[in-house]
Amino acid sequence: MSITSHDVARMAGVSQPTVSRALRGDPRVAEPTRRRVQAAADELGYVASELGRSLSTRTTHQIAMVADLRNALYPTLVQPLHDRFAEQGLRMVLLAERGDDRLTYDKLLDRSVDGVVLTTTLLGSSMSKGLAERGLPFVELNRLSGRRRVDGVTADNAGGAAAVARLLIEGGHRRIGAIFGSGQTSTGRDREAGFRRTLSEAGLNLPPSRVYHGGFGYADGVVGLSTLLAGRYRPTAVFCAGDLIAIGALNEARRLGLAVPQELAVVGFDDIEMAGWPAFDLTTARIDLTGMAVAAADLLIARVGGNAGRPEIRTFPAELVLRGTHA
Amino acid sequence: MSITSHDVARMAGVSQPTVSRALRGDPRVAEPTRRRVQAAADELGYVASELGRSLSTRTTHQIAMVADLRNALYPTLVQPLHDRFAEQGLRMVLLAERGDDRLTYDKLLDRSVDGVVLTTTLLGSSMSKGLAERGLPFVELNRLSGRRRVDGVTADNAGGAAAVARLLIEGGHRRIGAIFGSGQTSTGRDREAGFRRTLSEAGLNLPPSRVYHGGFGYADGVVGLSTLLAGRYRPTAVFCAGDLIAIGALNEARRLGLAVPQELAVVGFDDIEMAGWPAFDLTTARIDLTGMAVAAADLLIARVGGNAGRPEIRTFPAELVLRGTHA
Repeated sequence: MSITSHDVARMAGVSQPTVSRALRGDPRVAEPTRRRVQAAADELGYVASELGRSLSTRTTHQIAMVADLRNALYPTLVQPLHDRFAEQGLRMVLLAERGDDRLTYDKLLDRSVDGVVLTTTLLGSSMSKGLAERGLPFVELNRLSGRRRVDGVTADNAGGAAAVARLLIEGGHRRIGAIFGSGQTSTGRDREAGFRRTLSEAGLNLPPSRVYHGGFGYADGVVGLSTLLAGRYRPTAVFCAGDLIAIGALNEARRLGLAVPQELAVVGFDDIEMAGWPAFDLTTARIDLTGMAVAAADLLIARVGGNAGRPEIRTFPAELVLRGTHA
Repeated sequence: MSITSHDVARMAGVSQPTVSRALRGDPRVAEPTRRRVQAAADELGYVASELGRSLSTRTTHQIAMVADLRNALYPTLVQPLHDRFAEQGLRMVLLAERGDDRLTYDKLLDRSVDGVVLTTTLLGSSMSKGLAERGLPFVELNRLSGRRRVDGVTADNAGGAAAVARLLIEGGHRRIGAIFGSGQTSTGRDREAGFRRTLSEAGLNLPPSRVYHGGFGYADGVVGLSTLLAGRYRPTAVFCAGDLIAIGALNEARRLGLAVPQELAVVGFDDIEMAGWPAFDLTTARIDLTGMAVAAADLLIARVGGNAGRPEIRTFPAELVLRGTHA
């Protein structure tokens, strides 16, 4: 006869639900109790079955993270999400977004997960709409769909980009260029809007020859900078709508023998770890990606736990980090 | 009455098992059939239940990747693993290794996954032993436990490090230093062994003052280099047992105003993407991490599918990539 959680409960002197909670690391179980339950489970050779758990509670204790594994922010977001969910006894399944929304969507709706963190959302995404209609809890992290009545966590992208624009203007730059991320994302759209508005308010124009639109990757910075430099009125300063774009631009500037910031100022956005490395020393607009990820996890955990309150968008501030690449 | 896979099968004119296979993307189902099944499922509003599937087949269609999310190689390994498993209709659950083997071990054994990819294995790991005893299929990727009768994929770490040593010796260096990774890992141990052996064969010594042992991170390179430079007989060349260590060392050299390679040669190991960026232009020993990940996925998929053949270790070659940081 196989060992069940009831045997473990009897030996540890606790209830059966407490055994389940203790073994999945639920923080509501006090540490001494958890240790007593673990000792009893060890002695009896009992290992909790996640499969059995799904059956009894109709929940999976799994959260899906929909992510672009090549995105510069992915490594920063994945760790705090994983850890916050693990503290609650939730595992994280990784679904790499490949543009084929339909397949990802089906995978999310097959009852294998209790909730979803979306980090690749495009503006007006049908995924968010579908999940909302089917009642699967989800949260949009960093990129928002722009739908109403959805939980989301983002940063003050327009405000951060406006601060970068003011910094460059105050530095005396007049011929300013920009490498923007995708306009299909809320981050790309809002950073571009905040940057353009501030330039415009200062009476500076941003002609098409000094604007490059691409993704948020290293290669976008390389190609973007070389494109801007080929234009007629070369920029003396370039705003990059993401740090990895900026690092691509810095590497391209180095390859071309351009001195930064003397011949070209470069400013990024996000403050990923390598922005602070001496090789780059990148001036950027910092957003608290770890705090944002934790906030998103908490919003989702509350929903999965039954919170039926009004959907909420939390916006984190962006602040300039002055290093060595602005003039 | 709710829609079942039998309804979809009837409408699509296929068997019920074919419906299950088609909807989870099993490659044994031809593309036209898959499309017909999908169309029928769409029309009927049917979404396959992963929970129901677990019940009927006693398999979970999930693979766990045990990973250190801060490791430099993680981003390179995660994408090909995810994609290869997804092609087979397998999801990937992420378990971040936190040193607490026991908790991770329990999570793997609760029947929520069909197999495991270990990427953080320490030499002599009890995790590998336990999984083998419990009969859960697993594969060791990059880092091996050194246990016999275990599937694994690794690189010729000793050979690659020996080639680096020969390169530095042929470059005229005599005072050579090294920043080695953890000796508790097969990669750290083997790279150190290959490097030491080649120096020794050339009659060169590697005194403790020119050796630093740490992890494989950026900070290990920063601290390691500053430690080596504080020693009595400064090295003119430093081998770093991982590219992120080397990039930490390059940034520290830049901070100190040391010209690379004129005053200090630096060579890495792995050839991660940023090694090729102009800012680093790092000479390194290249290993095919993507190919290794795919090979590991394939070994595991075969085991999960019932392959009972002899365990196998696949070793990928390492080859020098000569860029700008060796003298």
